[in-house]
Amino acid sequence: MDRQLSFLREIDKLKNVIRKSPLIDKSRRENSAEHSWHLAMYALILSESSNQTINIDRVIRMLLIHDIVEIDAGDHPIHESTHIENQEELEQQAAQRIFGLLPRCQGEELIELWQEFESGASNDAAFAKALDRMQPLIHNVATDGGTWAEANVTETQVKKRYGPTIEGGSSSLWSKAKKLVNCHFE
Amino acid sequence: MDRQLSFLREIDKLKNVIRKSPLIDKSRRENSAEHSWHLAMYALILSESSNQTINIDRVIRMLLIHDIVEIDAGDHPIHESTHIENQEELEQQAAQRIFGLLPRCQGEELIELWQEFESGASNDAAFAKALDRMQPLIHNVATDGGTWAEANVTETQVKKRYGPTIEGGSSSLWSKAKKLVNCHFE
Repeated sequence: MDRQLSFLREIDKLKNVIRKSPLIDKSRRENSAEHSWHLAMYALILSESSNQTINIDRVIRMLLIHDIVEIDAGDHPIHESTHIENQEELEQQAAQRIFGLLPRCQGEELIELWQEFESGASNDAAFAKALDRMQPLIHNVATDGGTWAEANVTETQVKKRYGPTIEGGSSSLWSKAKKLVNCHFE
Repeated sequence: MDRQLSFLREIDKLKNVIRKSPLIDKSRRENSAEHSWHLAMYALILSESSNQTINIDRVIRMLLIHDIVEIDAGDHPIHESTHIENQEELEQQAAQRIFGLLPRCQGEELIELWQEFESGASNDAAFAKALDRMQPLIHNVATDGGTWAEANVTETQVKKRYGPTIEGGSSSLWSKAKKLVNCHFE
C-alpha cells in the first residue's frame, strides 16, 4: 500500500501539466488531469458511438492513465511545428519510472494498457484516441477557434489532423465533428 | 448526440469549482474535475483494499460523476462551520438540471448512480466515499496540515471526521491513514 500511495501522490503532478486547449469559458488553458477526467466522461457518455464493439470500462481506464507520462515527458500539442526527436523514448522512460512506483504486477498492467492506447491498434484504443481528438475540437469550436486561431490552422489542416483518428474510432462522431468544423470556418 | 455533447460542454464548468484542498506541491487549490480524476485513479489502484466485494468499474463511474452537482450547488468542505439549510435540495435540483441535459434514459441512470453515491449505502458507494475522504487526508498530511492547519482542526476532530467513512469502506486504508495522522500531529 505504501507503493500505491506513493504513486497516487506522484500523479498529483499531472494537475500542473498545462495543455494548449482552452477551457470553454476561455478563463485559462486546460491541465492534463482535468482533461483526463473529461475524456473519461466522454467515453462514459458516448460509448454507443464507437464503430467497433468495445469494453467501455477498459476505455475509461485507458483514458484515465493515457497522459500520465506527460509528468516527465510534457504535453506535445497536435499543431506544434517542432518535432521532438526522442519523444517516444522519453515517454517510455516516463512510463517505466512512474508506473514503476506501483507494486510490480500492477505497474506492468498499466504500462501495457498505456502502450495499447499509444499503438491505437485495438478497438478500445481506437475509440479512446477518437475521443482524445474530439474533445479539443469541441473546445476549439466553442471558443472561436481556440488553438486553431492561435496557430493559424486552416480548415483543410483541421480535417486532415483530426479526421482519420476520430473517424477511425467513430464515424458518427466524425460526421458530427465535420459539420461543426464546416460551420466554424464559414 | 447533440444532447450528449451539450452535457459534455456543460460539465467543463467543473474545472472551475475550486475545493479547499491544496495540490501536494502547494501551488494552488484543487478543482473538482481534477479531484474526480484523482479519485478514479485511487479506485483503480486501491480496489483490493475494499472491505466488501465491489464492482470497481461502477466505483470509478461513480467517482467520475460524484461532484458534477457542484457546478450549481458549490463545494462544501468538511471543515466548514456554516451549515447550509437546503444544500441537499440544491444538489438534487442540480442533478436534475445537469444530467437532464442528456437523453432521458442516460440521464436517469447517472442520477441514480449519483444518488447511490450520496446515500453511501451500497458496497460500491461505501468504498467510493472512503476514497473521497482518503485523498484529501493524504494531501493534508503531505502539505504540513493543509486545510487542517488553516481551520485549526485537532487530531481528535480529524479522526472523528475522516475515520468512520474511510473505515466503513476500507479498514486497511484507515489503519494506514491513522498512522499518517498520528505521525503528522506528533
